[in-house]
Amino acid sequence: MFRKLSVEFLGTFWLVLGGCGSAVLAAAFPEVGIGLLGVSFAFGLTVLTMAYAVGGISGGHFNPAVSVGLAVAGRMPPASLVGYILAQVAGAIAAAAVLYVIASGKADFQLGGFAANGYGEHSPGGYSLTAALVTEVVMTAFFLLIILGSTHSRVPVGFAPIAIGLGLTLIHLVSIPVTNTSVNPARSTGQALFVGDWAISQLWLFWVAPLIGAVIAGIVWKIVGDDS
Amino acid sequence: MFRKLSVEFLGTFWLVLGGCGSAVLAAAFPEVGIGLLGVSFAFGLTVLTMAYAVGGISGGHFNPAVSVGLAVAGRMPPASLVGYILAQVAGAIAAAAVLYVIASGKADFQLGGFAANGYGEHSPGGYSLTAALVTEVVMTAFFLLIILGSTHSRVPVGFAPIAIGLGLTLIHLVSIPVTNTSVNPARSTGQALFVGDWAISQLWLFWVAPLIGAVIAGIVWKIVGDDS
Amino acid sequence: MFRKLSVEFLGTFWLVLGGCGSAVLAAAFPEVGIGLLGVSFAFGLTVLTMAYAVGGISGGHFNPAVSVGLAVAGRMPPASLVGYILAQVAGAIAAAAVLYVIASGKADFQLGGFAANGYGEHSPGGYSLTAALVTEVVMTAFFLLIILGSTHSRVPVGFAPIAIGLGLTLIHLVSIPVTNTSVNPARSTGQALFVGDWAISQLWLFWVAPLIGAVIAGIVWKIVGDDS
Amino acid sequence: MFRKLSVEFLGTFWLVLGGCGSAVLAAAFPEVGIGLLGVSFAFGLTVLTMAYAVGGISGGHFNPAVSVGLAVAGRMPPASLVGYILAQVAGAIAAAAVLYVIASGKADFQLGGFAANGYGEHSPGGYSLTAALVTEVVMTAFFLLIILGSTHSRVPVGFAPIAIGLGLTLIHLVSIPVTNTSVNPARSTGQALFVGDWAISQLWLFWVAPLIGAVIAGIVWKIVGDDS
Repeated sequence: MFRKLSVEFLGTFWLVLGGCGSAVLAAAFPEVGIGLLGVSFAFGLTVLTMAYAVGGISGGHFNPAVSVGLAVAGRMPPASLVGYILAQVAGAIAAAAVLYVIASGKADFQLGGFAANGYGEHSPGGYSLTAALVTEVVMTAFFLLIILGSTHSRVPVGFAPIAIGLGLTLIHLVSIPVTNTSVNPARSTGQALFVGDWAISQLWLFWVAPLIGAVIAGIVWKIVGDDS
Repeated sequence: MFRKLSVEFLGTFWLVLGGCGSAVLAAAFPEVGIGLLGVSFAFGLTVLTMAYAVGGISGGHFNPAVSVGLAVAGRMPPASLVGYILAQVAGAIAAAAVLYVIASGKADFQLGGFAANGYGEHSPGGYSLTAALVTEVVMTAFFLLIILGSTHSRVPVGFAPIAIGLGLTLIHLVSIPVTNTSVNPARSTGQALFVGDWAISQLWLFWVAPLIGAVIAGIVWKIVGDDS
Repeated sequence: MFRKLSVEFLGTFWLVLGGCGSAVLAAAFPEVGIGLLGVSFAFGLTVLTMAYAVGGISGGHFNPAVSVGLAVAGRMPPASLVGYILAQVAGAIAAAAVLYVIASGKADFQLGGFAANGYGEHSPGGYSLTAALVTEVVMTAFFLLIILGSTHSRVPVGFAPIAIGLGLTLIHLVSIPVTNTSVNPARSTGQALFVGDWAISQLWLFWVAPLIGAVIAGIVWKIVGDDS
Repeated sequence: MFRKLSVEFLGTFWLVLGGCGSAVLAAAFPEVGIGLLGVSFAFGLTVLTMAYAVGGISGGHFNPAVSVGLAVAGRMPPASLVGYILAQVAGAIAAAAVLYVIASGKADFQLGGFAANGYGEHSPGGYSLTAALVTEVVMTAFFLLIILGSTHSRVPVGFAPIAIGLGLTLIHLVSIPVTNTSVNPARSTGQALFVGDWAISQLWLFWVAPLIGAVIAGIVWKIVGDDS
């Protein structure tokens, strides 16, 4: 279990440092910035790379909603949930701290949104609470369907990290304008702690909605996806 | 058959929500928008991800033209066509509805083209009916050739979703300016129902041209692709 | 042989229609155009997709320089070269014709460079003949090294189209500004015939340089790559 | 050993020519330039392609930090380190020379930063020495974790070049604004020799930081990654 929790910590650290780091440092770089497309690839590639690197040790969740969805679908012992989630949140917070150190090493540094998630006036595109809720529920549900399906025994081994990582890229391509894209409560928590204020008071949605989406996906999968 | 039609519904839902969603929500986001390149990746990744997740259940068509082309090539029983196509169109309409809920959760929401397909004055780049027809026929034909070829028994198992998904990305990289890219009558139908008006009256082309392309590909494949 | 030449025709058709089509139709689309990055992905994905679809039939060259390089390295019977090259050039010309039909279906159509290759004043970035020659030789040589290496028996089967396709993407990411990127005499010939004039008179370089690069790679590979 | 060092030379040559070449030639091309996103893909694809092509011969390091990290983790005989590193540095210098020949074949050529790495006033985004140091150490450490993990026997064969190549893309998506991204002392050395001056005097950091990161990763992996 020590090895499993260690790599969940490392994987979530990488997800937040890579994904939020690309957003904070490179998205709006003058003239040649990577934009939302680059940020979308960055988030997806954090999962693709660490799922290959350490997925064989812990399953490679890096996300409390993924762990919960897998538990609902009967793919993970519920008893391991607390440990996994704590390791993931700790990894996200550590990554946000390192990102803070790097980002603040600039003369004209301003914290800004620091890639935190939000809705209403803190939605990047000004989308309402309802739009944010629907988006996070649906996006997380499909993320879990992709994970549950691509790791099923009927799929040839080895391809799941590609499907899952690029699935996270796709989710960001759609939903950054709405909520800055969470689908991952750990990722939201790490950034919110550094932004404080509104990011903390809106954080509940980025736990509730992804977890609802994950539970729905776990149930749907048992109906349409499993053979047994 | 219930499971097959369920996942065709879900897959086409995801194709439309992901592809058209990225176009409506993120393509033209100020300064950091994902552009046509991001939309192209989004469409392709919807197919890549769901083909891995549920392709083993239904074949992973998510597109009436694909189902027809596979039937012509002898890869799918024609008796299943009606069920598949109904599930696909239903999935597309449901996705357009969810996308409408999300997109309208913005204070200054305007429906605009809502990622519907068009030609002539409703072509994104102002291309004629002839250009649109040629484009949709040829693009769909090659899409089917990629599908028929990459799922053939001579190709190592597991790679087809990469070829097919990124093939759809490629098709969008070329043809969004011409027709907003259909190659998929279900995807066109869902968006047209919400736009109404011109989108409905131009919808015929996005059924006729992809189906012609798919039939051509099915025939060409039987001549040059099959060993038997 | 009929099937082999047919799919070489189709594959090269797709390479030119997809690659040059993305450049002509979508690269500079106002505000949301795909840019050189999108064009680079388009070229690479034409090869990735068709190599999966029909590579098992003909080897999936779609490029006279590739056929020559493989012959030099002893991977292809020299007697097949003429047939392959004629099929490739015919496919490229047919694709340029279809692209012309589509592109001209726009009210304010202007032929422009039509994605032809050039150097000196016809280099996109104004690069000299020497720079163009060095670029095309070196890029083609590495393209062949990637092809020869990734199809070698020591590499697990199935991955070569990914390496080769994305290798072509990489080559375009570097060299479009210099020559508009050829590394493929068939691709250059198809576009040059429609542009005429300077494109015809500069066409020699896009046969000579890629073929030199391919021959060099074939020789280098026999020294450092083969076990036998 | 001759074949191993030859392909390490070629692979590092390709990494620098492709990665730095895309930065120098194409990143800021007017209107349609590939930006930092395109440069990130270029660096990653150099490794993906050559790891498939020649990884089976030498292991496909193309980077002194990778060789050192693998040696620390017990995956490479330390006696081979000097040869590998010399071949890598030589390849990088040769590539910088070829890139210089190409880039200078333009009438209004200016050397500029020539894709060299820097910190402080030579950081692309003006990041401090501390930010640069933290970034290079952490990024290299995760690069090595991805390499060590994805080449471990528990991962299906054939996927490692995808994980490693796209991992390098991800690293660039995050860190180009901070240091122009090194994580590879050979890559830094080649460009610095042509820029001279500040690039030489800052070069120490791009040897020290990546090597520290690689050693840390080697140790961490022995604790959390290995089964034995």
